[in-house]
Amino acid sequence: MDAISELGWASYRKATFDYWRGPDHTQKEDCVAEEVPVVLVYNQLPHVVMLTTPLNLEDFALGFSLTEEIIAHPAELQSIRVVQRSKGVEVRMTIPEPRFEQLHGKGRNMTGRTGCGLCGATTLEQAIRRPRPVKAGLALDAQLLSGAMTAMYQKQSLNQLTGAVHAAGWLTPQGVTVVREDVGRHNALDKLIGALAKAETNFEAGWLLVTSRASYEMVQKASSVGITLLAAISAPTALAIQLAEECGLTLVGFTRNDNHVIYTHPHRLTHYQASIA
Amino acid sequence: MDAISELGWASYRKATFDYWRGPDHTQKEDCVAEEVPVVLVYNQLPHVVMLTTPLNLEDFALGFSLTEEIIAHPAELQSIRVVQRSKGVEVRMTIPEPRFEQLHGKGRNMTGRTGCGLCGATTLEQAIRRPRPVKAGLALDAQLLSGAMTAMYQKQSLNQLTGAVHAAGWLTPQGVTVVREDVGRHNALDKLIGALAKAETNFEAGWLLVTSRASYEMVQKASSVGITLLAAISAPTALAIQLAEECGLTLVGFTRNDNHVIYTHPHRLTHYQASIA
Repeated sequence: MDAISELGWASYRKATFDYWRGPDHTQKEDCVAEEVPVVLVYNQLPHVVMLTTPLNLEDFALGFSLTEEIIAHPAELQSIRVVQRSKGVEVRMTIPEPRFEQLHGKGRNMTGRTGCGLCGATTLEQAIRRPRPVKAGLALDAQLLSGAMTAMYQKQSLNQLTGAVHAAGWLTPQGVTVVREDVGRHNALDKLIGALAKAETNFEAGWLLVTSRASYEMVQKASSVGITLLAAISAPTALAIQLAEECGLTLVGFTRNDNHVIYTHPHRLTHYQASIA
Repeated sequence: MDAISELGWASYRKATFDYWRGPDHTQKEDCVAEEVPVVLVYNQLPHVVMLTTPLNLEDFALGFSLTEEIIAHPAELQSIRVVQRSKGVEVRMTIPEPRFEQLHGKGRNMTGRTGCGLCGATTLEQAIRRPRPVKAGLALDAQLLSGAMTAMYQKQSLNQLTGAVHAAGWLTPQGVTVVREDVGRHNALDKLIGALAKAETNFEAGWLLVTSRASYEMVQKASSVGITLLAAISAPTALAIQLAEECGLTLVGFTRNDNHVIYTHPHRLTHYQASIA
């Protein structure tokens, strides 16, 4: 069980609201997703406040630390403790001193965001971190991809209650094995990457699914840990396509039922590849 | 015409991609949305880099300055100039010296984000700005709301091309009068608020529509300029409901065709109000 559950934060709350359908009106109880400030503290120095769904916060903090390249390996997260505070949650982490100095040098006064990944950047030159090249990875049978979003949906338990949270999921030849949810799409991705890293998952042996658009930051975060294929339910941006092209990641969009669009490096999708030939 | 158009940045690009529907494959040309780093500079000091759709950047910078309470009135934006740079766009603004000092005191090393509004916050205490109370505003006939999302969709020209951008729109008794689009939902809202402020719009004489979920920051930004009603196409978070409750803003969610759910302060929706009585 994630530490946060022990702290009494719920991931949703129930209340009664007015539902209208044309002139017809009913009052009914529904669930709404919580959104809680979480401050990430490295070596006793607050680094960033993020608004998140208070679930799987250890996964989140580990994933964020990896995808923002604050640490290079899960083992560099030497300690982690999730602490309830009156106005939110504090995640206290210890990282090696050289990593901390590197982080501190970058400018620590970051802000939370669910959108863009420009942590600490105040100049255009700092803004876009170039993604590192990804390796070959596994080929994905497009038939496996076809059912994957539906399979993931069935595991999005918080979204089924609230209709308000994004998910990131890990697809393997055995199906969708891990799903993480959050009000922010990048947070969901960081939680997933943290969970996978904790379990010492081989990032080249599966594929990433996200319930959102693919912005450049999703590509950046995915490639930072060596993920080779990202399939989004919605559209990519031009910058996401450009970065995926550069780093060798296969970017797939509009993944819905048996439809999808391949934007970069189509060689990793088999079966279809055969029918092109 | 917005300055950015003169700088040669396009809001989308065309390319050819692989479209799959089950075993059937076609290559076709499609449009993808651009996502460009924009640095906001106040009094020659870079403040934040945001990833945005390079359209209506003057509106964006004015709206951001207002909703982040960097300035208190549009007239405090003494000058604005949009400049193309090799790695993005720079928006150079001048604000009164006392405002600049106030901003600088807050900690200027912010980050861009499309998600959470915690600009410069590194502690939980700074994280959530309490929204200011909104005034009475106009009552909204629910029948007008019913067609509003469809009317807005027809004006989302970039989204119709790319399927990748959010919109914020201004609904008045005359219909949807102004729409702004962006890859980030908060950026779209800032652009809309900037456009309305520039036109000296009375924020109590209309209602806000957004094509996204309603996170707490949408409530915060809307109430900061005195908007009294926010209707989102999707769900709100619990924190958004709480802040809307506190500041007196009417929060409506799941606004689709003639359906909607009222989360706070239902008195501003007429007709339905009558049928409750």
